[in-house]
Amino acid sequence: MCDAIRTLAVRGAPAIGAAGALGIAVASVRGENLDEAARRLVATRPTAVNLAWAVERAKAAEDPVAEAVRIAEEDVERNRALGAAGAALVESDARVMTHCNAGSLACVGYGTAVGVIRAAHERGRRPSVWVNETRPVLQGARLTAWELDRLGVPHHLVADVMAASLMAGREVDCVIVGADRIAANGDVVNKIGTYALAVLANHHGIPFYVAAPTSTFDPASPDGASVPIEQRPPEEVTTIAGVQIAPDDTDVDNRAFDVTPAALVTNYITEEGISHSRGG
Amino acid sequence: MCDAIRTLAVRGAPAIGAAGALGIAVASVRGENLDEAARRLVATRPTAVNLAWAVERAKAAEDPVAEAVRIAEEDVERNRALGAAGAALVESDARVMTHCNAGSLACVGYGTAVGVIRAAHERGRRPSVWVNETRPVLQGARLTAWELDRLGVPHHLVADVMAASLMAGREVDCVIVGADRIAANGDVVNKIGTYALAVLANHHGIPFYVAAPTSTFDPASPDGASVPIEQRPPEEVTTIAGVQIAPDDTDVDNRAFDVTPAALVTNYITEEGISHSRGG
Repeated sequence: MCDAIRTLAVRGAPAIGAAGALGIAVASVRGENLDEAARRLVATRPTAVNLAWAVERAKAAEDPVAEAVRIAEEDVERNRALGAAGAALVESDARVMTHCNAGSLACVGYGTAVGVIRAAHERGRRPSVWVNETRPVLQGARLTAWELDRLGVPHHLVADVMAASLMAGREVDCVIVGADRIAANGDVVNKIGTYALAVLANHHGIPFYVAAPTSTFDPASPDGASVPIEQRPPEEVTTIAGVQIAPDDTDVDNRAFDVTPAALVTNYITEEGISHSRGG
Repeated sequence: MCDAIRTLAVRGAPAIGAAGALGIAVASVRGENLDEAARRLVATRPTAVNLAWAVERAKAAEDPVAEAVRIAEEDVERNRALGAAGAALVESDARVMTHCNAGSLACVGYGTAVGVIRAAHERGRRPSVWVNETRPVLQGARLTAWELDRLGVPHHLVADVMAASLMAGREVDCVIVGADRIAANGDVVNKIGTYALAVLANHHGIPFYVAAPTSTFDPASPDGASVPIEQRPPEEVTTIAGVQIAPDDTDVDNRAFDVTPAALVTNYITEEGISHSRGG
């Protein structure tokens, strides 16, 4: 399970939370030391708080297996409630921009940011989506485009660099993203590139929404600057699908997340509803 | 020559200008109709004005071959003068961000934006560079990283989405980019992603410099909105080095350039010097 999380076979904050809880469930069935298992699981990826939250919850439960299953089931329910609440923010024929994959493949099911789009689609609002490809790992191109295709939601894939041009051309009505951790002051830690979209949306007067279950809110992190930001391997930037795209031994900075200050967030969307200030 | 320009075997505004002039030279040696040759060459790529400028200049000359050679030689001289002028803007130990490739591979030699960095390096200013990979065609990863390595200028390659995070962390002292066309009002048309960097630099109080020879200034384009923006093939986004990275038949918008309003440009750097308003 640690390998699956570390190599991104399972990725997305809610999904790695559920996977971590299931890891504890497996360790408990095997009679392993749960403190040691929890330590190893939480160390796989430092930024998303859902991982530590779900691992601790499963570990503290009388029956870790039942608790892990409950965490997974709750995630889908939470996302449905979150989507239903957020759909109210999506106007008819809205052209929504999203980044990375905050869809069913990032969760146990339904999705957070994509869940909002999906709920609006199910309610007949006819949203269409600008899918940022999301370098370096291309979760937008590989995952979000695939999910939206299956859901029948019209979408266009674009290189991340195109967002500002689309906004300037009044081709984007709102931005909806997920989150890996939301600090006590409302700062949002999410996939690298999110902060740029927030600044650009603000510059162009476009609403910027963050969709995340309440398990993403971390009262123990006072602000974004206090959240550890994971550095991922340079090969994610220098190669794509095994093909080398930069000279040998090129130095790389590959931080996987950035911090969007609370002031740039128009609304937070959780399973408890829509909020102007941080969280439900 | 048309194929070489269209497929990006030759790319970069000054380089395709020189290539276009050489195309006219070849047509004149072969006794072909120069108006027809000029029409075909200019139609290959619509955005960079240097192409039309150089093709017209070679066509109007008494000896198109000598004129094409002169255009190529002048380009190197212009870039050296531009670099010498721009180096004054690069402080000691400056961490410069650049986008796409505005280096010797985009010109006949020396480079424009990279020319400024190179001139600062030659003058002992010890600049280091954040190289944006520049999706979709990855000119930063493939070309600029290679050029800087050859020049001995320290640099880090980053995914384009990382620029905002670097700026927020005070890790960028200035941004220097090239240009494909600069309109009469000073609006800059350059590689897609440039406009986002200008907004982000402005938001963070970081100087944003545009380095381009005066042949890039187009008095016939009143503003950025009047400049044709090339749409490139969707495969540039959906495949990388022949590897498919998005589902089959995904819709794509792949505009190759964007418009940076003059108000976001701190200085223009040309072979005539540094200017606050548009051009030399």
